[in-house]
Order: sequence, then C-alpha cells, then structure tokens
Amino acid sequence: MGKTYIFGHKNPDTDSIISSLVMTEFEKRTGNAEVVACRLGMVNKETEYILNYVGIEAPELIEDLEDGEEVIIVDTANPGELIPNLENVKIKKIVDHHQVLLNTSYPVFYRAEPVGCTETIMYKLYKEHNLQIDKKIATLMLSAIISDTLLLKSPTCTEDDINAVKELSKIAEINYETYGMDMLKAGTDLSSFTIEQILALDAKAISLKDKKSIIAQVNTASIPEVMKMKSDLEAGMNKIINENGLDLFMLLITDIINSNTQTIALGNSANIVEKAYNVKLQDNTALLEGVVSRKKQVVPIMTENA
Amino acid sequence: MGKTYIFGHKNPDTDSIISSLVMTEFEKRTGNAEVVACRLGMVNKETEYILNYVGIEAPELIEDLEDGEEVIIVDTANPGELIPNLENVKIKKIVDHHQVLLNTSYPVFYRAEPVGCTETIMYKLYKEHNLQIDKKIATLMLSAIISDTLLLKSPTCTEDDINAVKELSKIAEINYETYGMDMLKAGTDLSSFTIEQILALDAKAISLKDKKSIIAQVNTASIPEVMKMKSDLEAGMNKIINENGLDLFMLLITDIINSNTQTIALGNSANIVEKAYNVKLQDNTALLEGVVSRKKQVVPIMTENA
Repeated sequence: MGKTYIFGHKNPDTDSIISSLVMTEFEKRTGNAEVVACRLGMVNKETEYILNYVGIEAPELIEDLEDGEEVIIVDTANPGELIPNLENVKIKKIVDHHQVLLNTSYPVFYRAEPVGCTETIMYKLYKEHNLQIDKKIATLMLSAIISDTLLLKSPTCTEDDINAVKELSKIAEINYETYGMDMLKAGTDLSSFTIEQILALDAKAISLKDKKSIIAQVNTASIPEVMKMKSDLEAGMNKIINENGLDLFMLLITDIINSNTQTIALGNSANIVEKAYNVKLQDNTALLEGVVSRKKQVVPIMTENA
Repeated sequence: MGKTYIFGHKNPDTDSIISSLVMTEFEKRTGNAEVVACRLGMVNKETEYILNYVGIEAPELIEDLEDGEEVIIVDTANPGELIPNLENVKIKKIVDHHQVLLNTSYPVFYRAEPVGCTETIMYKLYKEHNLQIDKKIATLMLSAIISDTLLLKSPTCTEDDINAVKELSKIAEINYETYGMDMLKAGTDLSSFTIEQILALDAKAISLKDKKSIIAQVNTASIPEVMKMKSDLEAGMNKIINENGLDLFMLLITDIINSNTQTIALGNSANIVEKAYNVKLQDNTALLEGVVSRKKQVVPIMTENA
C-alpha cells in the first residue's frame, strides 16, 4: 500500500493545517499507518502560535503530487483550492464544512456538516470511533474551532461547535476565552509580512456571478493600525487586479474584538459593495458593521448584488 | 418550518425506497418531525415483497417539487437521477454510497462511504446517535443490503455490509440467507411487466466517454427464462436507441444464483462490450462470467474501452 497524503486548501488557515494534523492522527489510530500530513502553503502567525503552544511541527509543504497517489482532503471540497492534478489522484476521503464543488468518478468517504469548523466534525469522528482525545489533540481541535468561529462569535458558529469547544477545553485544561483571545491576537501580527503576503494570507478567488473577484481577509485587534498601510495595500490590490484581469478585489479587515469589518474595495465592480451593504465607499473604503464571516456575511450577499 | 422531502433516485431500487423510509424515521427520531418519505418512480417486485413482509406502505410518489422546498437525498448524488429543479430546492442532507456528481452553493450535511449499500451507512448513523433499531427497521435495513450486495456476493460488498447484515439479522430474528434468497427471487418475477417496463426497471443513463448509453439490469434466477423474450427485448431496446439517439443500450440479465450476467448489447457502439470483456457478441448477446455489479464490473471497464 502506498502513502496517503492529507491536506487542506491553499493559503491554509488554522483549520486547514490542524485538520491535516488531526486527520493524520485519526488515520494512524484507525489502522492506516502510511499517512503524511501535508499543507499547500505557508503557515500563518495564528497557526504558528498554536503549533508552538502545543509543541508540534507543521505539516510537510507540498505543491503537487504524482498521478495515481492517494489523498485525503480536509477543510475544502473546492478543486480550485487544491493541487493542479486533482483529477489524476485517488481521493479516499473528504472531511469538510463548505459547499460541495468537487466531483469524483468513484465512490468516496465524504463527511461534511454545515458547522463552523472541520474540527467539530473531527471531534465527532473521534467520539464515534471511541478514540480517546489527549490534551495535545484537544488543544489543536479547540484552537481551530476558535479560529474559524472567532471565539464562537461568528454567525457560522453552531451549537455543535460550542459543545465541542466546551468539552475540549476540559480535556485540554485550558480557559478557552483567555487562550483564544491570545491566539487570535497572535494571528493579527502582520509586522513580518510584505504587502503581497498580507494580501495573500487568506485570499479566495470567488466568482460573483460573471464577475472575477478576490475576497481577502485579515484579522486585526485594531482597524486603524491596518489602515495605516491603506495606500500600500491599494497599490498591491491594483497590481493583482491588473495582472489577473479582476473585476473586484475586496479586502476585509476584520476587528476580532468588536466584530466589525472595514473593507477596501477596488476594481470596476467595487460598487457591488455599496449595493450589497447600503453603504458609500469613501476613498475606496467603508465600515461593514457586524460583518465578520466571509462565508455567511459576504459571499452570498455580494453574489446576490453582482 | 416547512416540510422536508426525502427521496432516492429515479427508477428506484430497494435501497432507494428503503433509505427514504429509514432516513425519514431517523429524522423524526432526531427531532425533525416534518419529514415526508418520497419516491421518484414505481416500486419494483423485490421492494414490494419486502414492504409486504414488514407491513409498511411505500413512500409517496412525487415527480417534482416547488422551488425553495427542503430535501434530503439518499442513495444517489447524481443530479440526472433526481428532480428536474434540483438547483432551486434546498438540499439539507445527502446520504449515499456512489460517486460525487452533485454540487451545492452552500454547505450541506454529506455522508457517503464506499460501501455496498446506503443502509450500511444508515445503520452506522443509528448507532452513532444511540437510536435503538427495532425489528421493522432492522428488516428493512438488512433487506436493502442484501439487495444491493446480492446476498453479500457482489464485489461491491464490504466488511461493513457483512457486519451490518449479521447484527441486523439478530435484531430482526431472520435467517438472512433463506429470507434473502426468497426476496431476491421475488424481484425476478417479470410476469406482470411490459417489455418497456422491464427495460426501465433499473436503467441508468451513463456517458461512456462521449458515447451516450443506457445500461439496464434485471435480476433473474434463470437466464434462459428471460432470454425467451430476447427478440421483444431487442425491439424495445432499438426503439429507445432511436428515440434517444443512443450509441449503446446494454442490458444486463444477471443470474443471482450463479453470479453471472448474460448481456444483450445494441447500438453503434455495441462492440465496446467485445473489447471490454474479450468476448464475441453472437446474435447481439454474450455471457459475462462472474459479472454481477454494474457499478464495479461494468461501468468502469466499459468507460475505459469506450
């Protein structure tokens, strides 16, 4: 039997990295020893904080795989976010909490639920298989749920996510609110990144009907701090718009303390933002009150108004 | 809250009908009272035998639904086998054991495993939710697994299917081998059907690369008995080929006792059968030794040789 490579989406967030690690552990403990935790991009500051806290290495960085290899996909079912030759590898399993965008020509193990985080599903899988969750795994799991739900405050957060975090924080012996805020704040440290890197940290290519768009997000504890870089960010965004023929580049600068988002929108279709949120872009920017979730509060309403 | 309609694929086989009934029961017992078991076609003889044995009504026959209705899909993830306005209803859950052919623009509950029957997954769902399985549900579940795996003899049958049947037969207090053979034999009674109905009983429209095909299957305890109708079947097949511009109509007449299939193949691409199985079609027909599973032993090899 060959190896099975386990990875989440490109521009990996905390959930993608941790799902790869936790799924790898799950496979080993259920009899599939030949598994390799992988990632399709650099580890962000928040994830780095968590890995250091737990004392564990990041998954192996890969760019592609040879045809015919076996893979397990976590935290996405979007071919555009995966390896280029996805059609030529054998997908064994998918564990995800997003929309279904991937097709297969053979039956697979597919486990998805509309919850806030892949780890909430992994937590269920461990329980269903009567696998004990140790402190390390519990800390990893709860960190990912805190990350994806912004400390259980995002509208994507469900009862299942809350229950999982409460149970896991007991096992991990962690005050999840204090730990979670420290972890989220660590993720807002942009000091070591170039403008290009900031714009790529959590950028998703999204088609708003026929409008070619990128919607990128950065978390912060202080919107004014990020807005100091506004003109540099705009220059970077315009460069990406020109190079990729985009109709829209929307940057979400999300205040994780107060649960608001300042957006900078550039491109010929920037006015979709005005229509969608009933705001006026002043100098390309507007405050979107109460908006924190790209998945629930941005993509659907932007699509509708495109 | 509106109703949720639960159904499997068109030309429903036993697994599709029983999955609809068992999933409906599952939803009710986990708090979703407003569910309606449905089906997208007529009940076959085998399923009729089972429903009579258990003393339960068939699901409600529907052809389509209004836009915006909520649905749960079982035993398929193929839009071509479902209602015409699938894109305009809200898919809440999918439970299946086939390939992934369906996309959604929102996260769903998706549960698929590469096992022999959807009911093997339903059995796991009941156990995970600590729901007791009564005699009736156990009989339904094991009947579907026996149907899809041809009494555990099909190459699609997995360890999980075998374990489920063994456990369920204890609960149902049924000798599954005797019962299973009676049930499968009941399914081979074609006496009340017209030729058109026989050809539609379990017909799947399948693209073999660019070749437009139908691969239909009938189970029998005696191949010669079915072959008595050969010229009528051929006339019916040719009619369907002409009306639908097909490249191939392949009929699988599967001997459930001896695990062989006699095929009748018509259309301009009938020679794919000869290439795929290294046989000569004589008078449009050939014996495919050991072939019983369309999914595992016909579709992949026919696609490869198309």
